Parts: sequence; C-alpha cells; structure tokens
Amino acid sequence: MASSILSDCSSARLLPLRRSLLPPRAPRLRSCPALATPRRLLVAARPQLLPRPRHMDSVPAATASSADSADAPAKLIDGKLVAKQVREEIAVQVTRMKDVIGIVPGLAVILVGSRKDSQTYVRNKKKACEAVGIKSYEVNLPEDSSEEEVIKHIASFNSDPSVHGILVQLPLPRHMNDENILNAVSIEKDVDGFHPLNIGRLAMQGRDPFFVPCTPKGCMELLHRHGVEIKGKRAVVIGRSNIVGTPAALLLQKANATVSIVHSQTKNPEQITRQADIVIAAVGVANLVRGDWIKPGATIIDVGINPVDDPESPRGYRLVGDVCYEEASKVAGAITPVPGGVGPMTIAMLLSNTLESARRIHGFK
Amino acid sequence: MASSILSDCSSARLLPLRRSLLPPRAPRLRSCPALATPRRLLVAARPQLLPRPRHMDSVPAATASSADSADAPAKLIDGKLVAKQVREEIAVQVTRMKDVIGIVPGLAVILVGSRKDSQTYVRNKKKACEAVGIKSYEVNLPEDSSEEEVIKHIASFNSDPSVHGILVQLPLPRHMNDENILNAVSIEKDVDGFHPLNIGRLAMQGRDPFFVPCTPKGCMELLHRHGVEIKGKRAVVIGRSNIVGTPAALLLQKANATVSIVHSQTKNPEQITRQADIVIAAVGVANLVRGDWIKPGATIIDVGINPVDDPESPRGYRLVGDVCYEEASKVAGAITPVPGGVGPMTIAMLLSNTLESARRIHGFK
Repeated sequence: MASSILSDCSSARLLPLRRSLLPPRAPRLRSCPALATPRRLLVAARPQLLPRPRHMDSVPAATASSADSADAPAKLIDGKLVAKQVREEIAVQVTRMKDVIGIVPGLAVILVGSRKDSQTYVRNKKKACEAVGIKSYEVNLPEDSSEEEVIKHIASFNSDPSVHGILVQLPLPRHMNDENILNAVSIEKDVDGFHPLNIGRLAMQGRDPFFVPCTPKGCMELLHRHGVEIKGKRAVVIGRSNIVGTPAALLLQKANATVSIVHSQTKNPEQITRQADIVIAAVGVANLVRGDWIKPGATIIDVGINPVDDPESPRGYRLVGDVCYEEASKVAGAITPVPGGVGPMTIAMLLSNTLESARRIHGFK
Repeated sequence: MASSILSDCSSARLLPLRRSLLPPRAPRLRSCPALATPRRLLVAARPQLLPRPRHMDSVPAATASSADSADAPAKLIDGKLVAKQVREEIAVQVTRMKDVIGIVPGLAVILVGSRKDSQTYVRNKKKACEAVGIKSYEVNLPEDSSEEEVIKHIASFNSDPSVHGILVQLPLPRHMNDENILNAVSIEKDVDGFHPLNIGRLAMQGRDPFFVPCTPKGCMELLHRHGVEIKGKRAVVIGRSNIVGTPAALLLQKANATVSIVHSQTKNPEQITRQADIVIAAVGVANLVRGDWIKPGATIIDVGINPVDDPESPRGYRLVGDVCYEEASKVAGAITPVPGGVGPMTIAMLLSNTLESARRIHGFK
C-alpha cells in the first residue's frame, strides 16, 4: 500500500475502506472508460489527460455548487492548499496559547508492532505536530505486548496533563481487541472522535460531540471554506462506515442538508446520487461514481483513495478516488482531486482536534 | 392535551413533537381537504368516512408493501393488536424467568411534581407492568425538589438489583436540568434508550445499543410483524427528533434500507417522500403527509399524534396523525391508524426493554 499519509485516517482506520461495501459491477466500478484501454482496466486517470484544475483561491465561493458552472470544467477543491492554511492557523493559535497561558498542546501516539506503513503514519503525524508547535509523544511497544500493557500506557496518557490527545495507531496486532483498547482512551482526549458516545452526540440535536472525526471534519471544512451552501441542499453520502460515511452524514444533517446514505444494499445508487447537490463518496471502490451519477453543478468530495495497477508508474500503481474524476469534473461544479483532496485534510483536522482539546481542558478561548 | 398514553413516549418526551420542525404551509399542513370544510380546517378525518380497515391478521405479510396493493385501500397495520401480542409474549417470558431463576423484572418510575398528564402516564405504565408481571416501583417527589434529591433516588435505583429499568417522567420542573438528571441513570438501566452512548452504538456498524428507544423500536416491530421487507428498500423518515426520527432512521439503516431524512429545511419534501417504499412520519404536524406524497403501495408508519379542534367530539378535539389517513390509505399498501397504530407499541416496547434488561443483567436467555 501507499506509504503516504493519504491512506491513513489519523490512526490508519480509514483506508482502504472495505471494498465489499458495494457489490462488484465490473468493469463499471473500476475504470473510467474514457481513460482505460481494454488491457488496462485498472489504470486510472492519467494527470496529463485531466482538465487543468483551477486553483482554489480563484474559485468564487458562492458559485462553487451552482448549476451555472456545469458547462465549465469543475472547480478544483484543493485540499492540500486548505490543509496548509489550516495548519498555519493552528500554528498561530498554538503560539498564542503558549504565550498567554504557557501551555503547549500535546498529542500522544501509541504504536504496537513494527508495520512499516504504521511507522510511516506515526512519523508523519509527529512531523505535522512539530511543524505547528504541538508536542508529540510516542510509545512504541513490541508486537507481542499484552492488551494490559497497551492499556497501561493509555491510562498513563489519560492522566498526563501535558497530553491533550491520544491516538492508538491501527491496525493492532491480531491478538488484541481493538474495542477494549480504544475504549480505554479518555473521551476528553479521544481526538479521533470514534467513541460511540461521541458519535451519539454527533447524531443528536442539541448535543455536540467532544471531537468530530478527522476525515468527515475535513470534508466539512472543505465545503465551508469553499462557500458551499449546505442548509436545505440535498446531500448523498456514499458509504456508511463508522469513521467516514456515518459521521459525514450526521455532520451534513447537523448543517441542515437533506441527507441520503447510499450503501451496498442500495438499488439504483446512481439515481439517488444524481439528485444530490453535495456528494461525499467514501466507499473505497475505485471510480465507482461516474459522470452520469452527478447532477450538473454539484459539489463532489471524494474520500476514496484506491490503489489501481499502473505499469507506467514507478511504484506499479496509482491512487484514484471513488469518483471517476475525468468524467465527474466535466459535470460537477466543484470537485476534490485524489490525491490532494480530502487526504491532506485528515491530518490537519487531527491537529485541529488536539488544539481544541487543549483549549477545552485549559479553558482557553 | 390527551389523557391517553398515546401522547406519551415512555417518559412523555415524544409528543407533541415540535411543530416548528416543518415550516407552516397552511392550509395544506393541517387539513385533509376531503374532510375539512372551510370553517373547520382543523377538523380531521371522521372515522365514519374512512374505508373500513381490514384487520391485521388478514393481511398477507409478504404483500404488505407491494405495489399491487395500490388499487385497493391500504391494509391496516393494527398497533393495538400487535402491542397486545407483544404484551402477551412478554407475560409468558416474565413468568418463565420467575419460574426458572426466581427473578422478576422491575421498572422504576420517578415522577417530580403533580402534572395530571404525567400522573396519568405513570399510572398507565404501572398498570401495563402489572398486567405482564413486571414489578413497578414509583417515587413521587414534590415540584420544588432539588436536582440532588432526584439524582439521589436515581442512584438508589441504579444500585437496586430488583430494578432493571429506570424512567424519569418528563417534563421535569423548569428549575431542573434534564440532561444532568437523565445522565444520572445507569446506561444498563436506561430503558428509554436516549443516552448519547446508546444512540452512538445505534448509529455504528458492528455495535449494538443497550436499548432501542421505545417508539422507533415499536415502528420497526410493526414493520417486522407485517413482513415488510426493509433491506434494499428506500425509506424516508420525516422528522429528526432525538427520540423518534433520528433513531428510526438509524434503525432502518441498520436493517439495510436506503434512508433519507426529511426535515424542516428540506425543499420539496413530497418529492423525496414519494420515492419511499417505507415512510415513517414523526414530525408532529397534523395531516402533513398527503396522498400525493406517497408512492403507490408504500408502507406508512405514522408516529404523529396531534390534537385538532373538533367541536363534535365531547373533548372538543380529536387526535390525528402526521399523515392524512383519508388520502394516504387510498394510495399506500399498508398504513398505521392514529390512534391505534404506533401509540400502543411504545409502552409495549418499554416493557420489552425492561424484560431485556433483566435478562441481560441476570444472564438469562
């Protein structure tokens, strides 16, 4: 798999999403016909064939999802740029917090075992923390550690006042029960926001979660920063995972969209998706969402990051989204690319949640 | 308001639902034109005008939601009858539990103040408990009690092994914070199922709630017992309250329906509703859902119980649902009446949750 943080969801829970979420409908599922040759069904969009994306800051926000943009290629929702802006804002806030109350937000990551991808994710998080001034703490435990040992370290971070966020890097070794371990993380420091109590608060009117899960939070941030109107709009979320689809749908509903969730048992998903002003695709099936699934002018947030074979790439594969970008970008009003869309937002939101936690714990506005 | 348990949601939280959930669109919202005269816009369906409902046990379950029933009047989903069956089944199980392990399930209700409607609800719950052999415990506190006193009683029931379910009758006096008090109820005994942790577990795949909130559970039970297929079907839930709409949508999704939630900010709710094979209306607006909102053959579960003026009634009002029964019953495949549909199910599900709790606590299958 990719060595990039793009395929991680703050603690490697996101991607690859279960491919079984939607039934196989090959060849439609995996290829954009405009791009693939019969012999290279799995080869995805080649950048040189794509319409040159316009830069985010040239996008008039108010028209980002309007139908009048349907004749032009979709505007690019540049997650890399937004994530950079977010990180810069966080850095300013971290400095201010340190200056005013002398507190530095801290994020602790617990890594069990020596999976290379997990090590990379942890390293990237550490770097991202350092870049904005958040202090990072790391515990590396051997593969054969016991659940009790992991929980002991979690308990220690739970009571450590310099730690404001705790992540357990997944996947955990097979002999461990994820739920037992994750439930040990204090709800006040669970910056991933996956605790059922948190999801419940997200689902309920009049309640707010302690933390919004990072990837869905990143999706919403992209919509907000591009001035996409959500209230009263039809939104379709494709995929209903605990970490992206479900919380994304709950967030859209909290923002007063009319939300439908499309999943593996949905008949005619394209018909439902075509009604949406906003689509969040988070199902983990390469190029599932075709051009004819999309309402002209709709805003498309593509969470999928799927490796597809590409003999022309030095790595032998490319990363593509759940949305056939080539087709969708001709119909949509605005669209996130893959990579460079939602991916960079996830880690930025992790930093944001850590800062938020430190502020809440120390009552700092 | 009505003195019937129909307008209570196990602890009086359900109805009347906030009328502001959908924008006023009078006169369409409040009257079925076929029934109302210009001078009596608020008078709802008169029973003698309604097609004579067929009895539930004459309904071939497999066709309950099939389109071929669209030409005939809708089949009646008789909540009164199903609730009676459920209560009988519970009585058998309660007796078996007592015989085998000597444990009698217990439900405790805390009533603060002396509202007549609340007293009626509590009395009805007590009667319903007695009828199935569940032991009921009641605490009546004066209106001017402190939060601490209420919480003290909750704590006492939390630790009482003969109590398996705890309800705090709402509304509480104004000087009390509902959330503080409800959060004091142990999650293992919160038979209302409204705790955020419970709602979160309901929302998440691979997790199960401790308790399914009573009214949505009743809706699902009606669908199941009428053999209405849910998997792969389009479902629309109208209303997104914490106690009915939201958990109903989550339950339908857990049962693999493709769910859309229609609410006050939804544009063209009738268009979306018309796509649904299953409609759960829980918005608290009399006769909101008209015949032309309904797909022929759809199954309609009407949670609303709205009092409308009726000078011909001895009480001066009648109870009607959120669905214009007169119109809907000509289009739908199956429909719940109001009253006598979802209402009787709520208290039956409260008994069911109490039995379930006792079984879980004592490890009795």
